[in-house]
Amino acid sequence: MFELIHQDKNSGARLGRLKTLHGVVETPCFMPVGTQGTVKTLSPADLKGAGAEIILSNAYHLFLRPGVEVIKKAGGLHNFMSWQGPILTDSGGYQIFSLALLRKVKDSGVEFQSHIDGMRHTFSPEDVVKIQEEFGSDIMMPLDECVHYPCARDYAEIAMRRTIDWAVRSKEAHHTEQLLFSIVQGASYEDLRRACAGELVDLGFDGYAIGGVSVGEPRKLIYNITQLVAGLLPKDKPRYLMGVGLPEDILEAAEAGIDMFDCVTPTRYGRNGSAFTSEGKLIIRNSPYAEDFKPLDEECGCYTCKNFSRAYLRHLFNTEEILGLRLVSLHNIHFYLKLLSAIRDSIQKDRFAEFKKTFLAKYMKAGSRKNNNR
Amino acid sequence: MFELIHQDKNSGARLGRLKTLHGVVETPCFMPVGTQGTVKTLSPADLKGAGAEIILSNAYHLFLRPGVEVIKKAGGLHNFMSWQGPILTDSGGYQIFSLALLRKVKDSGVEFQSHIDGMRHTFSPEDVVKIQEEFGSDIMMPLDECVHYPCARDYAEIAMRRTIDWAVRSKEAHHTEQLLFSIVQGASYEDLRRACAGELVDLGFDGYAIGGVSVGEPRKLIYNITQLVAGLLPKDKPRYLMGVGLPEDILEAAEAGIDMFDCVTPTRYGRNGSAFTSEGKLIIRNSPYAEDFKPLDEECGCYTCKNFSRAYLRHLFNTEEILGLRLVSLHNIHFYLKLLSAIRDSIQKDRFAEFKKTFLAKYMKAGSRKNNNR
Repeated sequence: MFELIHQDKNSGARLGRLKTLHGVVETPCFMPVGTQGTVKTLSPADLKGAGAEIILSNAYHLFLRPGVEVIKKAGGLHNFMSWQGPILTDSGGYQIFSLALLRKVKDSGVEFQSHIDGMRHTFSPEDVVKIQEEFGSDIMMPLDECVHYPCARDYAEIAMRRTIDWAVRSKEAHHTEQLLFSIVQGASYEDLRRACAGELVDLGFDGYAIGGVSVGEPRKLIYNITQLVAGLLPKDKPRYLMGVGLPEDILEAAEAGIDMFDCVTPTRYGRNGSAFTSEGKLIIRNSPYAEDFKPLDEECGCYTCKNFSRAYLRHLFNTEEILGLRLVSLHNIHFYLKLLSAIRDSIQKDRFAEFKKTFLAKYMKAGSRKNNNR
Repeated sequence: MFELIHQDKNSGARLGRLKTLHGVVETPCFMPVGTQGTVKTLSPADLKGAGAEIILSNAYHLFLRPGVEVIKKAGGLHNFMSWQGPILTDSGGYQIFSLALLRKVKDSGVEFQSHIDGMRHTFSPEDVVKIQEEFGSDIMMPLDECVHYPCARDYAEIAMRRTIDWAVRSKEAHHTEQLLFSIVQGASYEDLRRACAGELVDLGFDGYAIGGVSVGEPRKLIYNITQLVAGLLPKDKPRYLMGVGLPEDILEAAEAGIDMFDCVTPTRYGRNGSAFTSEGKLIIRNSPYAEDFKPLDEECGCYTCKNFSRAYLRHLFNTEEILGLRLVSLHNIHFYLKLLSAIRDSIQKDRFAEFKKTFLAKYMKAGSRKNNNR
C-alpha cells in the first residue's frame, strides 16, 4: 500500500509511493483542498494539468451539502465531482470544532448545529466512517477531537484519549478496501503526543496523520511537534501533516519525514491576489505591477505564466474579474505541485538539504511575508 | 475584406467570411463579450476550445481601467489579454449613455464622469478612434449617441444627426488597416433609420451596425427595425446587430440578413445559473435538479456537459463556488457558438428556415422564458 522508495542520506526526508483504489501517488505530495467537492475556482482538468495526483475533500461539508444521498446516487464523490484520481476526505473533526455551532462533545460522538442553517446533527465515529465509505474516498480520516491553542493539559488529555477511543471504533467500523488513517492529537504536550502516537501505532492503521497543528500556535511549536511525532511513526506507513502550510513549512516538515500535505493556502492566497513565486510572495494589486509585463514567476511554466502578465492580472483584480482569482489560484497550485516535485527529485538524489537551502535563500530573500497564515 | 459566400434561397439569411488583421471569421458569428478585457470567468483557451473566432471588448471600460497607456505598452489589447484572434471594440457610446455619470453631449463630443471614481473625461469621435487604434482592435466602432426607449422624435433626430457627423469625423481620423464600422441610429422612427442608413452607406464604411436596439423596447420593434435597416445596407458589407440577444432573437435577425452578434446574455445568465439548452432554459438552482445526474444538455459536447451533472452544478451554485459560474458560462458560450455554427450550416444548405423552425419548436416548447433580458 505504501512503498518507501528512498531515504535521503542527509536528512529525514523520504521518497515514497502510496497506492490507492484510484491510482498511485508519489510522496511527499501536496493535496489541493476541495472542501466542498471543488478546488476553488479550478476544474479537474486544471488540476490534472498542474500535475495534481490526489486531492482532499471534507466529509463535514459534503454531509451538509449536497448530502450523502446525492453523492451516493451520483456513484460516489469521484463521479460527482468528475475527479478520477485519489481523494482523501477529512472527517470534519476540525470543521466541527472550528465552524459548527453549539457543539457538544460526548464520548459517543459530537452533537453540533450546521454552520449553514443551524440544523442539529450527530456524528459518531462509526457515522463518519460510513459517510466516507459511501463517498468512496480513497483515504478516510476518523473523527477526532481537535483542540484550540492554547489548550489546558487536562482537556488536551481528554481530547487525545477520546481521539484514540474514536480511532479504535473507526477501525472496527471499517469494512472496505479504502485506506483508513488515524490522527495523532495531544496539543502541544510532548508526552501526550508520544502516548497518542504509541497507542495508535500499536492499533495499526494504513497511515498516520498529525492533527491539531496550525491552530494558532507559534510556527516553532509546529516544527517541534512534527519532528517529535514523525520520529515515533513506523517507517513503512505514510505520514500526513494536516493543514500545513506555507512552502517553508512544507520544506521543514518534509525534512522531518512527512509524506503528505494539504493546505488551503495556494487557493485562498490566489483568490486574494497573492502569488507564490520562486522569489517570494507577490501581491498582484500593488501599484508597481501596473505596467509590469513579466509573468508572475519567470521560472514558471503554468498556463497563467505562459499567457498573462502581472499588469493584466492586476487589471483583473482591480476590476473584480473572476478570471483573476482563477489564474492566480492555478499558478499557486502549480507552484506548490512543482515544489513538491522538486522536493521528490532532490530526495532521490540525496540532495534535499541542498535544495531546501537554495530554494529558501531565493524565496525568503525578497522579504516574503514570514508570518503564519493558514 | 468581406466575402458573401452564399445567400439562403428561402430567406434573407446569408453566409459570409470576414477578414481581419487577426484572422478570418465565418458569419453569421457570435462575439462573446469581454467588456473589461476578459470574457467573464473564461480564459482565452476556454473560448478557443468553445469555438470562438472573434470576441468583443469595450473602449470605454478599458480606457478607464487599466487605461490606454498600459494596453499600448503591453503591445495592444491582443497581447494584454492573450487573445490572438480578432477583436471588435465597441466605442463605449452605449456605456457613456447607460453607465457614466453627469454626461454632457455636445457636437464636439461627450463629457462624462467615470462610473468608477467620478473622474471627469471627454471623448471626441477622434479620441475614440485613436484609443481603438492604440488598442489594435481589428474592428473599431465610432462614437455614437445611443438614446433610450422611448425617445421623443426631436431628440432622436438630433442624436441620429450627431451620430452621422461623428461617423464622418471618425472616418477622417482613421488612418490604419483596422476596420471601421459605422452605427445606424434613429431610435424607433423608420424614416430616421432610413435616413441614417442611407447617409452612412453613401459615406462608405467597412461594415454597418444597427445600434440603439435592445434598449428597453418591445421585441417586435427590434425585429422591425432590424429588418428595415438590414434591407437598406449593401450586400457586400458585414451587418452587425449590437447587443442582441437571446437565441430566438439571433435566429430572427439572421433571417433578416444580419452577420454579426454580441450579447452578455450567455455569460451573465451563466453566472446566475441559467443554462441555455436545446430544450430551453434551465435554472440550475431549482430543486428538481438536486438528484438529476444528466448533463445540462444531452446534445452538448462541451467540457461542462461531458464531465458534470446538473446535480453537481446545482451543488456548486448552492455552495457559492466560483467553478459553477465558470462551468455554466462555458456551456452557454458553447451553446451560442454551436447555434451560430448550425445556422451557418443550414444557410449553406438553403435550409435556414427549416432549421429555425425545428430549433425553436424544441427550444420554446419547454416554457423557455420569453421576456427579453439583456
